[in-house]
Amino acid sequence: MRYRRIPNETIRRLPVYLRGVIHLSREGIENVSSNELAGLLGINPWQIRKDFSYFGDFGTPGVGYDIGGLIKQINRILHLDIGHKAALVGVGNLGSALLAFPGFRMYGFEVAAAFDVDKRKIGRKKTGVLIEDVADLHHLDRRGISLGIIAVPASASQDIADALVEAGIKGILNFSPRYITVPKKVKVITIDIAMDLARLPYYVP
Amino acid sequence: MRYRRIPNETIRRLPVYLRGVIHLSREGIENVSSNELAGLLGINPWQIRKDFSYFGDFGTPGVGYDIGGLIKQINRILHLDIGHKAALVGVGNLGSALLAFPGFRMYGFEVAAAFDVDKRKIGRKKTGVLIEDVADLHHLDRRGISLGIIAVPASASQDIADALVEAGIKGILNFSPRYITVPKKVKVITIDIAMDLARLPYYVP
Repeated sequence: MRYRRIPNETIRRLPVYLRGVIHLSREGIENVSSNELAGLLGINPWQIRKDFSYFGDFGTPGVGYDIGGLIKQINRILHLDIGHKAALVGVGNLGSALLAFPGFRMYGFEVAAAFDVDKRKIGRKKTGVLIEDVADLHHLDRRGISLGIIAVPASASQDIADALVEAGIKGILNFSPRYITVPKKVKVITIDIAMDLARLPYYVP
Repeated sequence: MRYRRIPNETIRRLPVYLRGVIHLSREGIENVSSNELAGLLGINPWQIRKDFSYFGDFGTPGVGYDIGGLIKQINRILHLDIGHKAALVGVGNLGSALLAFPGFRMYGFEVAAAFDVDKRKIGRKKTGVLIEDVADLHHLDRRGISLGIIAVPASASQDIADALVEAGIKGILNFSPRYITVPKKVKVITIDIAMDLARLPYYVP
């Protein structure tokens, strides 16, 4: 089921809420008010109430939101409850960091395959994942892999994106600081680390 | 000079515009229309025109926006024209990737210092930067360093944030998937890679 009317800006905040409530849940907390969550996350309480109302959770007056329920609901809306396998392409410094990243599991992701062009890396394991030859990147859909993570140099990123699409990937997380072109049916989220840093000096006196 | 009335959402998009116009400039292009820029960046053209109007650039009808002018203006608004030195803490896989990251230079950033806790790394150079003992992380302000980058495990991130604030840092780019508490005068931008990935399945059928 897809909740059609949830705006993109709300979708963008849902993983933030999810991380927050998972954090509270691990501390044994069962209920949270929008004001408490606002304090933890640095988001306006009215914004939180409005976002939660999109999926029909209005909390209980005087008690707040049920944390277990929020986790289930957000996971379902984001389609995280079904688990997702991702293929990583590029096992350099960044790719190695991504393979070892503990945060992926929190959201139900598994990096199930890794590819590189370097013959010295191919055939070895990194964080338990076998590194395969990028020339063998085919039919990932048959292996139940629906997401691709691009961590190759900018000069190679379009070729890798093409190969991932050809292999049946439905969504791409792109870490190369370059625009990649894919068919409309494939969703791309680009993470440009330098771009996030570029916002910082504006707020620094 | 600070342009007071620019909303945070516009500030968030300015580095995206900057990357786009730098890209065009390198290809020898001198003018761009909001429609062309919209196609390149995947942002609505009306949004681009509205954002640019905040800093008084309305372009020239039939010619478009002057790319050199846009680069100068955005750099000035974001305070990127003065150059910024950053200290990196944590030279593991992610930290090493950040040290080698070509994107920082595009925005006038220099990673001028690196710190780690591992005695085997301390005293060595990585991508031309000497790795110092994290116990010596003091008085970064005296070295002209105003920004900190945290790439340590979550369990250490609050201690490192405290040390950076104590050392005179004004802004922090936090890669650890954990909330860090800092005084209000210090701006923190957290990059949670898993959180970006968590948005992807929503868009994937």
